[in-house]
Amino acid sequence: MPTFALLLEYDGTPFVGWQRQKDGLSVQEALEQAAERLCAGRPVSTIVAGRTDAGVHAEGQVVQLSLPADFPPEKLRTALNYHLKPHPVAVLAAVLAPEGWNARFSALARAYRYVILNRQAPPALLSGRVWHVRQMLDAAAMDKAAKLLVGRHDFSSFRAAECQAKNPLRTLDRLDVRRFGERIEIFAEARSFLHHQVRNMVGTLKLVGEGKLKVAEVARILAARDRRVAGPTAPAEGLYFVGVRYPTALF
Amino acid sequence: MPTFALLLEYDGTPFVGWQRQKDGLSVQEALEQAAERLCAGRPVSTIVAGRTDAGVHAEGQVVQLSLPADFPPEKLRTALNYHLKPHPVAVLAAVLAPEGWNARFSALARAYRYVILNRQAPPALLSGRVWHVRQMLDAAAMDKAAKLLVGRHDFSSFRAAECQAKNPLRTLDRLDVRRFGERIEIFAEARSFLHHQVRNMVGTLKLVGEGKLKVAEVARILAARDRRVAGPTAPAEGLYFVGVRYPTALF
Repeated sequence: MPTFALLLEYDGTPFVGWQRQKDGLSVQEALEQAAERLCAGRPVSTIVAGRTDAGVHAEGQVVQLSLPADFPPEKLRTALNYHLKPHPVAVLAAVLAPEGWNARFSALARAYRYVILNRQAPPALLSGRVWHVRQMLDAAAMDKAAKLLVGRHDFSSFRAAECQAKNPLRTLDRLDVRRFGERIEIFAEARSFLHHQVRNMVGTLKLVGEGKLKVAEVARILAARDRRVAGPTAPAEGLYFVGVRYPTALF
Repeated sequence: MPTFALLLEYDGTPFVGWQRQKDGLSVQEALEQAAERLCAGRPVSTIVAGRTDAGVHAEGQVVQLSLPADFPPEKLRTALNYHLKPHPVAVLAAVLAPEGWNARFSALARAYRYVILNRQAPPALLSGRVWHVRQMLDAAAMDKAAKLLVGRHDFSSFRAAECQAKNPLRTLDRLDVRRFGERIEIFAEARSFLHHQVRNMVGTLKLVGEGKLKVAEVARILAARDRRVAGPTAPAEGLYFVGVRYPTALF
């Protein structure tokens, strides 16, 4: 039973998220259905590097796919893309997985990008792809506040109530806020994140950008280890799963 | 009757193009309907800087809007955006038009961008926003060929059969081809373009990128002044109307 590593791009808009659910189409179901069509309907299995919520996009998601039949990886990519139509999911690359590799547990780092469109007019070309914030945000202040979150901390203040992780300690390797004209991009990198951690950090940084929170207050919020003192969860549609780093580059 | 200059962004996908047509919704109709709602149904009129075809997008289209009632420009923008929902059209800016200004005839330069996604996998995040070309293109060769088209020429070889311009002479000020990873972007600038000129030039440059045409042959195609010798028309969905330059900056 060969195992492949897939690099995926998807538009999260029409999906209930990565994970299979009863109430709508997930990216996982779309991908597994496409793979099963290649294998005469025999079941396949997947393990994802980073589960994404409904509406969250991916530029470089990594999926481990085990098939009941062998395929040349290049042909697998082409065939999966054919069967994935018309869903907005594309297999950018497919390779045979190294022995013992696990898409989830072998990951050394995961990277996310969050995009805020900071202007008066609503998005037309980027509708469903950004968080539209009308009030002018101070990106430099947001970046200063972001630096207070970098490092090894208990991130309970930025953790969803439904988060299933046993341990709220995480090491945030990078959290940068940059303005590119009317776009503000927030880059986050860590070995792993708590559920909603990126969106909750962004929701708090946005309050700093608006001047509703002082930079230093973010350190206090982190130290409180209490979700109620931090800002609201930023919307899913501005979030992109950018990529994963493994001990050996796969693609 | 006050006249305004509007800066528009739109996703061309759901529209039959800029211009009103009987067989579907145009950007013009969506905008005029929104404006008429502001004026108790009284008719309004628009003049556009650059008519775009079905599926062509705009990042900085300019429209001259004459209203039967006065409005503070800032309020006009907000109200138009409100009434434009749910159409993917956004008014980025609105100002009172200078005396004697005409959105179409006062333009000194128009700029377009054409985006090719040059990779094996189909677009997921950029579906409907790029021309997907699987064969690896030589962007440097395309750029060399593009330079042969810059200047004042008879562009009959790149002109749609339906083009209504009396004169096929145009001065192409800029035509640059640049690769950004798997994206190839083609920037075109001229005072005005013939119908389908950008898409027809891109269709020919793509043949150069594939190696099906030599760079020097593009000069021969231009000199032939015959649409049949040039390449096919590139798809509308990769084209963006980027902006217009006027004697005095408006926005």
